[in-house]
Amino acid sequence: MAVEKPLLENLSLNQITTEYWNVKEAAEGCVKAKIPWISLWRHKIEEIGLAETKRIITGSGLKLSSLCRGGMFPAETAELRQKALDDNFRAVEEAAELGTDVLVLVCGPSPHKDIQTSRKWVEEGIEKLVPFAESHGVKLGIEPLHPMYAADRSVVVTLDQANTMAEKYNPNQVGVVVDVFHVWWDPDLYNQIARAEGRILGFHVSDWNVPITDTFKARHMMGDGVIEIRRIREAVEKAGYFGPIEVEIMNQKIWDQPGDDTLAIMKERYLEHV
Amino acid sequence: MAVEKPLLENLSLNQITTEYWNVKEAAEGCVKAKIPWISLWRHKIEEIGLAETKRIITGSGLKLSSLCRGGMFPAETAELRQKALDDNFRAVEEAAELGTDVLVLVCGPSPHKDIQTSRKWVEEGIEKLVPFAESHGVKLGIEPLHPMYAADRSVVVTLDQANTMAEKYNPNQVGVVVDVFHVWWDPDLYNQIARAEGRILGFHVSDWNVPITDTFKARHMMGDGVIEIRRIREAVEKAGYFGPIEVEIMNQKIWDQPGDDTLAIMKERYLEHV
Repeated sequence: MAVEKPLLENLSLNQITTEYWNVKEAAEGCVKAKIPWISLWRHKIEEIGLAETKRIITGSGLKLSSLCRGGMFPAETAELRQKALDDNFRAVEEAAELGTDVLVLVCGPSPHKDIQTSRKWVEEGIEKLVPFAESHGVKLGIEPLHPMYAADRSVVVTLDQANTMAEKYNPNQVGVVVDVFHVWWDPDLYNQIARAEGRILGFHVSDWNVPITDTFKARHMMGDGVIEIRRIREAVEKAGYFGPIEVEIMNQKIWDQPGDDTLAIMKERYLEHV
Repeated sequence: MAVEKPLLENLSLNQITTEYWNVKEAAEGCVKAKIPWISLWRHKIEEIGLAETKRIITGSGLKLSSLCRGGMFPAETAELRQKALDDNFRAVEEAAELGTDVLVLVCGPSPHKDIQTSRKWVEEGIEKLVPFAESHGVKLGIEPLHPMYAADRSVVVTLDQANTMAEKYNPNQVGVVVDVFHVWWDPDLYNQIARAEGRILGFHVSDWNVPITDTFKARHMMGDGVIEIRRIREAVEKAGYFGPIEVEIMNQKIWDQPGDDTLAIMKERYLEHV
């Protein structure tokens, strides 16, 4: 275990942790709580528009750790896959406009039972997206999701897969995002984190606990579960990642409490468990 | 996709699919539905005792495809781990007494955050169990569980892990059990099935669908989900497995319907989707 606490200057609020806050409330909350980074979701940006979002973030002095999210590449027809790609082009433009160089990719589920073909569509989508992203100074961060989401969110389910896909490009183009919730169970985790050296574009924290009655909202506050978060942070740092650490928690109970309380608890748990 | 339907002579009812039936009802149900194999759970055997169970199974003419289950090796103290091992010795004796040569191992969750140590305890437990099992003519089938169960059921979560653990022994001692629900998401699935050649001790079928509101009872009837079951069967057969195929479904709705209906549907879906 790393003995050292993480630096508060790396702490980032992934906006979905305070799902009921809009962009302005989330930015103000972070400023008040002295959390220096924020990660925005595109559906929240859409509510108020890109220009207003940019005005709020710039005015707040916050740094944007990433934009959530691009991806969702697989679709039955070439036309639908092009439509998904077009949406990814917009996501890249938004990331660039808002001043973050990381677009997180949640690669998408399979529209049919042939998961291998869907995985090829993900690779094809990324291949088509890379030149556009590079020309905008935006890196693509492939986030493997927990295999629990293989049917409804992402056919990319292991860091091994994400690394293999990313290694076709240079680290300024495509990397991986390590989210402890998604990868903690993996027997090959520490090898794969080491393999990702120089290519880790984000580190997300939360915790896993049971029972799970809603797979989407299954995440817990750090310290309320079974994940060796600090050990994983240590591995990620050994692999050269010292960037922002996003707290990303979908949890109804946390959403229902005042956002300021969530940020206070999250700071405390970050220092204690990350 | 394999074009050929599976053989009805390989169909096995894993008893948990008809959870509300006792051993006698399950055996009678199988005989009536002309399902030649059954797999029993130890808690069901306990209800009526081993001798009575043996009498029922022998009298029914059914073949026992496996006993569910041994495992659950990790525990905080050496004393508790010995207790778990003792229970595994009993499971081996029961398997031998009932005339099946396969004891399915669900390896158990970790009692603390250090999942790597728990994995070592699993290996130690199996090592201690092998000579006893061998002397009883019982093979140990390591069943990797879906990573969704890493915190509460099994620290063994991939076929890669199970293969690596099994390969320390000869195939008459330790093998693997392939359950489509647990492994379908794995990008390395077909390589790992091929790697398990000669060592597959069981093949379990059900289906995966979303949303999941109860991880334990998340399984569906074959055909009601996203898994390419027939393709996986074909791979398992290429790896030399032509033994019984257990239908193992924990699903409240299926449990609530009459067992005879479940068996009728399961036969139909088996021929169509497995």
